[in-house]
Amino acid sequence: MRVVVPFAASDPKTRLSPVLDAEQRHEFSAAMLRDVLEALSERDPEVLADAPVDDVDGIDGVQVTVDDRALTPAVNAVLEVGTPVAVVMADLPLATPEAVARLFEPGADVTLAPGLGGGTNAMVIRHPDFHADYHGASIRDHRAAADRVGATVAEVDSFRLATDVDEPTDLAEVILHGEGHAARWLADEGVEVAVRDGRVGVRQP
Amino acid sequence: MRVVVPFAASDPKTRLSPVLDAEQRHEFSAAMLRDVLEALSERDPEVLADAPVDDVDGIDGVQVTVDDRALTPAVNAVLEVGTPVAVVMADLPLATPEAVARLFEPGADVTLAPGLGGGTNAMVIRHPDFHADYHGASIRDHRAAADRVGATVAEVDSFRLATDVDEPTDLAEVILHGEGHAARWLADEGVEVAVRDGRVGVRQP
Repeated sequence: MRVVVPFAASDPKTRLSPVLDAEQRHEFSAAMLRDVLEALSERDPEVLADAPVDDVDGIDGVQVTVDDRALTPAVNAVLEVGTPVAVVMADLPLATPEAVARLFEPGADVTLAPGLGGGTNAMVIRHPDFHADYHGASIRDHRAAADRVGATVAEVDSFRLATDVDEPTDLAEVILHGEGHAARWLADEGVEVAVRDGRVGVRQP
Repeated sequence: MRVVVPFAASDPKTRLSPVLDAEQRHEFSAAMLRDVLEALSERDPEVLADAPVDDVDGIDGVQVTVDDRALTPAVNAVLEVGTPVAVVMADLPLATPEAVARLFEPGADVTLAPGLGGGTNAMVIRHPDFHADYHGASIRDHRAAADRVGATVAEVDSFRLATDVDEPTDLAEVILHGEGHAARWLADEGVEVAVRDGRVGVRQP
């Protein structure tokens, strides 16, 4: 099965701008990508990037395809080549081999791993007619898309796969639960968990 | 094994005030409690409430203990009576029998189900010397507390158990993934998922 990791290489993670500058966001995104590729390492993952990734550390030997279109058409172009295909987002720094393995267990035509806030953080697609649609609350659209083509659906109940990193508060999850490159990068930068008024956020040096 | 569900009956879920008034928060909390009790129904759960719950629907036949202390001393009082004990929070409206079953699978001295934002949404405690501490980023404190008494630790990787409801944005998760009383209550009130600027929130009628 092809295992594809879409990666936003150009101006990544802009919603982290309040706490990380452009260079930091670039480095942190690359660290998250490495965590995902390592979690998938037994499955020969390939990267689908929206810009060249020559300056991204630690992905030597990984096949990279550059497609500068938006996520949805880029993923659908992969699906049109043939199924089965797994699509695993690059911003899942809590992904582990154990969590990722659960994605491949169900025999359903479409297996979905929901992301926080309605996203779809990973899918395994075995049905030839299914199309991706990452706009909005995509988990709902993907359930409907599977239904439309008569595909059976399974969902993976994983906190590690649900945790994508978009907002500053998401960094707290990486510090509290991560053990990979992204967690170490945050520790090296001195980013720490801060609790205020019962809410968890992050604090910088 | 005793299975205890701590429930905040007095002025619950104040951080939902921007979208739900006091009466609504009361009703919604009770709906979430029912979802948790139903997910646990094969394990004879009991409620540990901080105030009387005579006006809470749907919990007839469930044993209720009222302890008006804060969560940490109230839970520790239960642990002092004897272990093993399971503690499952009442604000987990995505809990299902399948998700809850995973909490009881590991044979570890302490099994933890992390919550979003560093909380501890459920634990199974088999070690007699372990004490709870729900202040701040409690998942970290609970790992340390287990370590201090030489207890083995397992963690359950579940999005459904990780999703507690504190903030208005958490309601979107209930609408997108819930199938129980809390999800139906929100639907009846006309609360819907709204997507704006790529972020998911809720919209009221």
